[in-house]
Order: sequence, then C-alpha cells, then structure tokens
Amino acid sequence: MQRWKLTIEYDGTDFCGWQVQDEQMSVQQAIEEAVEQFTKVKTRIHGAGRTDSGVHATGQVAHVDINSKYDAKEVRDAINYYLRPHKVSIVSAEAVSQDFEARFQGKHRVYCYRITLHPSSDITLDQGHVWHLNGDLNISAMQEAANHLIGEHDFTSFRAKACQAKSPVRTMHRLEITEVENKLISGRHLEVWAEAPSFLHHQIRNIVGTLKMVGEGKFSPDDIPKMLAAKHRREAGVKAPAHGLYFVRVDY
Amino acid sequence: MQRWKLTIEYDGTDFCGWQVQDEQMSVQQAIEEAVEQFTKVKTRIHGAGRTDSGVHATGQVAHVDINSKYDAKEVRDAINYYLRPHKVSIVSAEAVSQDFEARFQGKHRVYCYRITLHPSSDITLDQGHVWHLNGDLNISAMQEAANHLIGEHDFTSFRAKACQAKSPVRTMHRLEITEVENKLISGRHLEVWAEAPSFLHHQIRNIVGTLKMVGEGKFSPDDIPKMLAAKHRREAGVKAPAHGLYFVRVDY
Repeated sequence: MQRWKLTIEYDGTDFCGWQVQDEQMSVQQAIEEAVEQFTKVKTRIHGAGRTDSGVHATGQVAHVDINSKYDAKEVRDAINYYLRPHKVSIVSAEAVSQDFEARFQGKHRVYCYRITLHPSSDITLDQGHVWHLNGDLNISAMQEAANHLIGEHDFTSFRAKACQAKSPVRTMHRLEITEVENKLISGRHLEVWAEAPSFLHHQIRNIVGTLKMVGEGKFSPDDIPKMLAAKHRREAGVKAPAHGLYFVRVDY
Repeated sequence: MQRWKLTIEYDGTDFCGWQVQDEQMSVQQAIEEAVEQFTKVKTRIHGAGRTDSGVHATGQVAHVDINSKYDAKEVRDAINYYLRPHKVSIVSAEAVSQDFEARFQGKHRVYCYRITLHPSSDITLDQGHVWHLNGDLNISAMQEAANHLIGEHDFTSFRAKACQAKSPVRTMHRLEITEVENKLISGRHLEVWAEAPSFLHHQIRNIVGTLKMVGEGKFSPDDIPKMLAAKHRREAGVKAPAHGLYFVRVDY
C-alpha cells in the first residue's frame, strides 16, 4: 500500500459538509466513493479539517491508502474522473510516508472569508461564494478589532455551543482584513484571512460576523477585549454564513 | 414613461445567450418577463451587445421604458425580485433621457476573457467561469501577438462565418494579457482584456483561441500579420469557449 496526501478543492454548496453523515452527501463520502470506483476497494479517507455545510475549500488535505501500482498523476486523474458528478476535485496527489496523518500532523491552518459589498439586492456570478452585504464597512475599525484577537486567547465567546474541543484556548497567528481588486465584478471585495494551528467550531464565522458588526459601527474595536473576557457566546456578534468561508491551506 | 438605463450582471451558463429565441431561455427574455411581472405591461428591453450562449456579463447595458411612478432603487430591486429564479441581476438602474439608446450610442465596449492554467484534470469553484487549460502559456509571446491586433484592421480571419456585420474592419483600442493574483485558487490566472467601439461575431473568442496557440508555441507572434492579411477564417486559430468570456462595460 502507498499512502497519498490529497489536496482537495470543493464547492461546499451541495454538501452537508466534509464529514460523512447518514442522510446527505458529504465531500468525504463523494471522494471515498470515487476512490472505491477507481480501486474496487472500500477505503476510508482522513481529512485535515471538518468543514461545515456550505463551506468551500481550495486546499483541504486528506490522506488515503491505495494499492501501490499507480503514480501520482494516475491517482489524481482517476479519482477526478469518478468525482465528475460532484463539485469536488483533487488538485494534487503526492506520495507520502506511511506515518503521514492529515489531521493530527497539520501544524498550521489557513482560512479565507470573502465578503462583497454592493448596494444591489442580488449578486449573480459570486452567489453562494461570498457573503453579500448591501452597506459599506469601516475596514480600519475591523482591523483594529481583529488585532485584539491575534495571539493566545480563550475564545469561548466565539465558539459554537456544540463545539467539542476540550480547551477553548487557541492561538491566532494572523487575522487580516484585505480589500482585493476585482476589475470584473462591481462592488468592494474584502477577504478576511485567518491563520492558526487549529480553530474551534464556528470560530472564524463568529469572528467574521463580529468584525462585520464592528465595520457597521454596532461594536467598537475596544469591545473585543470585553467579549473575550466575558467567555460567553452571547457577548460576541452574529455568525457569518457558511458560504463565504474557504479552507485554503494546511502546513505540515 | 421614464427611460431607464439598466446595468446587468449574469451567469450565461443556463441561457441561450442575450437575445430572445424561440425554444430556449435568453437573458433578454428573463428580464422582459421580470419587468412584465413588476409593471403588468409587456415591455421590450434593448441590450448594448448580443452575447452568445454561455458568455457572462458583469456590465451589460440595456434600456427600457417604464411607467414613471418608480424611483431607481424600486426599479432595480423589483426587477431583481422577479428575476430570482434566474442567475441575472440588475446591478443598477439609472433614469436617462428618452433619447438614450443602449446599443447604438455605445461608444466603447470592454470584454474580459479569463483563463486558468492548472495541471489538474478538473477545476471546481471556477467551473464554467474560466477556460481551464492544463499546460502553461508564454504570456510575453501572447502579448507580442496581441500587439499586432491593436489598431484598425480587417478582422475577416477572426470573425464567425455567420457574422452579419457589413464591414469586417474594426479598431482594437486595447488587447492586453494580464496575470492576476488569486491567493485562494491554485494555478496561474490570466485575463485577456479587449476594448473597442464594437466587435465582430466571435471576434474575441477567435482572437483568444489564437493567442492561446501562440502561448503554446503553435504559432509565432509574427504569424498574426499574415493571418490578418489572409482574410480567411481558417488562417487563424481555434475559437475559445464561450464560458471564459465576460461583457464588462459599455461607455457612452
């Protein structure tokens, strides 16, 4: 057997999320079924992060063990062939040693949250791929707020009630709001980049929703330390919708 | 009656193109039906350019006459409300004088053609929105070729056989290949920007297909003047697919 590191891109819209569930199609199940059609062997794959329903990925990582007779291009292209009905594709397959473990060896995770500001009631080309807001946002206030979240903190106020992590303490290495140029699509286009060794359940979406409220003037940047200190979910802002979030990269 | 200038965004994937046809849904028909549902009056709309099936727009322009009791926001939002089933939206509605004419008064049209270079057999998030090529392209050779097409030329070798324009002569003001940064999606991302007072049928797609072949080394930049001089469609390169093309702007 050969262990493969798969780098995976997907449109999360039509999936119940990464992880296998009983009733709905997950990204994991789509890939496992494609691997089974390719190898004729029922095979489990192991992802680096469990994205929620609607969350996209451009660089999710998973590992899988496959009979050793194939090369990297064959593995990638064959899985992609059987993945065709689904909006999932293997960006690359890389042969790794048998002790590579996608989830537990991931040292650093990178997410990006996309926001489009446009006064129109609807957007079209990026529908389901960005959080579309009608008003404007004060980006410098948002960045000032974000700076309070960088470093090691108890993120209880920013994690889902259902979060199963033992500790609410996480270390945010980067939380940066950037405005990106898009000559094609009208409006202002923001990206919130979040990097940490690991994240709590809904942590990024709760942070982005809170930063959005800072940008609207509903909170001030100085409210963030109070939210952290309160250690209660109701003290922070709304949860941003899933469809603006992208799992971009895992470093090992 | 009030004449309105509508700026329109659409995903061309599910449409037979801009113009009304008998059997398939066009963008024009979708908007006309939405205007009729809104105003209860059957109304014709007039677009600045007839995009082909699969071609997208971020700034198509059309004019329409509507009973004068509405303001700009009401017109935009009401049409968008009735457009909901379709991937079309009105970006803005602007009251204009009764002699505004979207097509014939358009002085300058801007199109963008998107190409993604990635070795993977499939792409996901931008599927149907870019021309995905597996190999690499020599951008400086492509730009050198493009420079031969700037200015006034007889573009017979680059227009569709079915093109109904009286003259094959057009004046290209800009034909520029730019590499754009995309921190989210892997691969190289190119945009070919084309600007002219007007274009022939399939002119941009035939040019982009030819430039792609220059980028692959199948033509040299110096072959372009020969193609122009030959005045025959078979002398130029392939036609790029519709789904990479965006109608971006019309200047009046």
